[in-house]
Amino acid sequence: MALSDIKTAERNESGIALALDILKQRFGERFSTGEALRRQHAHSTTYIPAQLPDGVVFAEDADEVQQAVQVCADHKVPVVPFGTGTSLEGHINAPAGGISIDVSRMNQVLKVNAEDLDCVVQPGITRKQLNDYLRDTGLFFPIDPGADASLGGMAATRASGTNAVRYGTMRDNVISLDVVMANGRKITTAKRARKSSAGYDLTRLMVGSEGTLGVITALTLRLQGIPQAISGGVCPFPTLEAAANAVIMTIQMGLPVARIELVNALQVQAINAYSKLDLPVSPCLFVEFHGTEAGVKEQAETFGEIAAELGGSDFIWSTREEERLKLWQARHDAYWSCVALRPGAKAVATDVCVPISRLAECIAETEVDIAEAGLIAPIVGHAGDGNFHVSVLVDDTNPREIEALEKFVERLNMRALAMDGTCTGEHGVGQGKMAFLELELGGALDAMRAVKRALDPDNIMNPGKIVRL
Amino acid sequence: MALSDIKTAERNESGIALALDILKQRFGERFSTGEALRRQHAHSTTYIPAQLPDGVVFAEDADEVQQAVQVCADHKVPVVPFGTGTSLEGHINAPAGGISIDVSRMNQVLKVNAEDLDCVVQPGITRKQLNDYLRDTGLFFPIDPGADASLGGMAATRASGTNAVRYGTMRDNVISLDVVMANGRKITTAKRARKSSAGYDLTRLMVGSEGTLGVITALTLRLQGIPQAISGGVCPFPTLEAAANAVIMTIQMGLPVARIELVNALQVQAINAYSKLDLPVSPCLFVEFHGTEAGVKEQAETFGEIAAELGGSDFIWSTREEERLKLWQARHDAYWSCVALRPGAKAVATDVCVPISRLAECIAETEVDIAEAGLIAPIVGHAGDGNFHVSVLVDDTNPREIEALEKFVERLNMRALAMDGTCTGEHGVGQGKMAFLELELGGALDAMRAVKRALDPDNIMNPGKIVRL
Repeated sequence: MALSDIKTAERNESGIALALDILKQRFGERFSTGEALRRQHAHSTTYIPAQLPDGVVFAEDADEVQQAVQVCADHKVPVVPFGTGTSLEGHINAPAGGISIDVSRMNQVLKVNAEDLDCVVQPGITRKQLNDYLRDTGLFFPIDPGADASLGGMAATRASGTNAVRYGTMRDNVISLDVVMANGRKITTAKRARKSSAGYDLTRLMVGSEGTLGVITALTLRLQGIPQAISGGVCPFPTLEAAANAVIMTIQMGLPVARIELVNALQVQAINAYSKLDLPVSPCLFVEFHGTEAGVKEQAETFGEIAAELGGSDFIWSTREEERLKLWQARHDAYWSCVALRPGAKAVATDVCVPISRLAECIAETEVDIAEAGLIAPIVGHAGDGNFHVSVLVDDTNPREIEALEKFVERLNMRALAMDGTCTGEHGVGQGKMAFLELELGGALDAMRAVKRALDPDNIMNPGKIVRL
Repeated sequence: MALSDIKTAERNESGIALALDILKQRFGERFSTGEALRRQHAHSTTYIPAQLPDGVVFAEDADEVQQAVQVCADHKVPVVPFGTGTSLEGHINAPAGGISIDVSRMNQVLKVNAEDLDCVVQPGITRKQLNDYLRDTGLFFPIDPGADASLGGMAATRASGTNAVRYGTMRDNVISLDVVMANGRKITTAKRARKSSAGYDLTRLMVGSEGTLGVITALTLRLQGIPQAISGGVCPFPTLEAAANAVIMTIQMGLPVARIELVNALQVQAINAYSKLDLPVSPCLFVEFHGTEAGVKEQAETFGEIAAELGGSDFIWSTREEERLKLWQARHDAYWSCVALRPGAKAVATDVCVPISRLAECIAETEVDIAEAGLIAPIVGHAGDGNFHVSVLVDDTNPREIEALEKFVERLNMRALAMDGTCTGEHGVGQGKMAFLELELGGALDAMRAVKRALDPDNIMNPGKIVRL
């Protein structure tokens, strides 16, 4: 897919002008058309050029979201929901202009139901804010996509991250959503019961819909007890295949690993340089177990046996927080170590996900591809899910590099699809993966389009994302 | 809701006549209009009267399902998908007549991907058939709704059962579906990767859609490793509240309980009589842990401590299969012991699900209600999910008893909704819960209706279920 596919769409100039006037009147200082602010609401960590909204509303409650959506609905003006802007595939761009509804001020915890292990939050709260709030309750929200994203945004993009292998993704951890739909009506998708078979799963339909079906105004989330004990460690392997086989055996044995991260040799090299470590420059697995003292010790030992059987070097692990964090520091530094590999370059992150039996093969072929394309691009994978990220370091002012990047991303996606994988395990489709989604699911896109048209007949909700209409 | 709400809908007589002719020609002996067979395809374990389809097609592959749906689509004739007919809320009734597509002959395992812990199956295979097939692989499919249901039906009704507290429901264990849509086109909802954020979650939209959006023709399912060890046991509690608090504490501590079943005093009495046991006649918890030898021992011991703290009598447990099965026999006999409480009566099973903090209160109020209504109705709950079943023993030839039953079911549902619960945790909506679904989700029903109309504009897919159009 070429950048030229990401078009600026037709603008409804008269509708936009009217909406801007009405929103200015209604929201006063909490509505802005200043360029710096609009630019900040369309930034992206991809190579996709920014497409600015015409105005930004800072909504402070669900009623205000509803009012703003209603104005946009009345005048057929695009609505682009905005949380923290940490999404990666152009989700917050406004190809046809319109209004960015910023919910970052809606960042309150509305209720913690400790006995039920759930809570109700506003969409703008970030995962760190939520976990800080929860600390004294002995509970935590487990999904960790890396960035300190807003929960509304995490739900909208079906985010996951390092510990999805144990706790699932946003798909599994949202009980219910309040959503303002394209017609301005507010719905609640489910009651607070932990399971339900009451009708179509609107919660799951909204999770991952990337703002194209409505604006999330509240979330009921599942929480977990903070584990009594955590063990964690790192183990180098002679080959990618050996590391991947250790992952497969770990999962097959039902070892309840909380995190199992694969870091390729180039990434280890970057980490060694950045974090002043001397890990062997070969693929490493970073693992973490959550449970009782005895449980996490047993699990780490069992993992050590698996690793040894598959040729892993010493598996060094600890249950002591300080040592454990030190061992994992390298993994946490991955992003910055990566950026340091090529100072001044932009790290463009892309992700695919394949059945874990194909993970080693997919990464190995991708490493060859990267070398042949002359790119610098370390790889980190959420190996337990078969999901991996390539961070391509490019000079994004150089069109030749952008073209090489685009071609690489295309080959990466085609490779994943050929292995029965998906074009995105956790970043979402946005603008960047639309063409690959069509290749991935073919005729199923007609069903997606039908759903989109049914729930948003005027195509005002985050248009130009996920499916072409 | 009264029985009179379950109406026989308007029939498209000319379309049905044409479809019957064409299907007879195309399917020969595998198409039947015999009344006995049609009756068998509309039976129900509820008090809802049978509404027979006009004909039954036995499809042998996805192409045949597609052909049959296409004939029905061409002539605007209802399609009612049929697996084993073990659903409970009138899902297989044909209120406007039409064609029952029986997929029970499509019962093959198409592929086991042991390294990926998944398999691909046809929709007519039952869970016992699947687990028999898998035995030698060391893997199993964990969802156990009690009945030996077909996997297609289990996906369609979003089934769960005793071990959902550990392994999730069908929502969590279906990776991808092949579906023949109302327009006769076949789609695949997802690739085989374990997670994906590629577009709208069509898989979850189909899971729980009860045949109203399409006919499932293949399923890719997540599998689990057969646990190394299982411990299980039973513990009587002085009160429902004490038992429910033990459940809450178990879950809050993150104890990975695989099953935690609450059986009320009347049900214990029934079990004692039927299974010749002498359990104390008070609420009991049946629990089971899956893991390593050391793990399940530790977990059972921890549970014993929790139980003791909350006034539970002796928690008797074992890791030895024979003893464990003996301890659990009582729970497995629940259904038959229940039927034996009132010989000749029909056991009408209904379910609701509430946040677990409200479970004790909801069951206690329901016990009072049952007593006041003069009904005989034991209660068994999947307590870890807040889901419980009431099996009402009625003489279904007696209109007064049916009326009392209906009024009781209405009060039960209203009670669950008032406690932020759902009108069905696992049985589905079908015909029986349509009125309660409207009360439960209000305006969200408009979104469900919009989705239904978009994907099935002529309302041919299992009409008269889930939502009123």
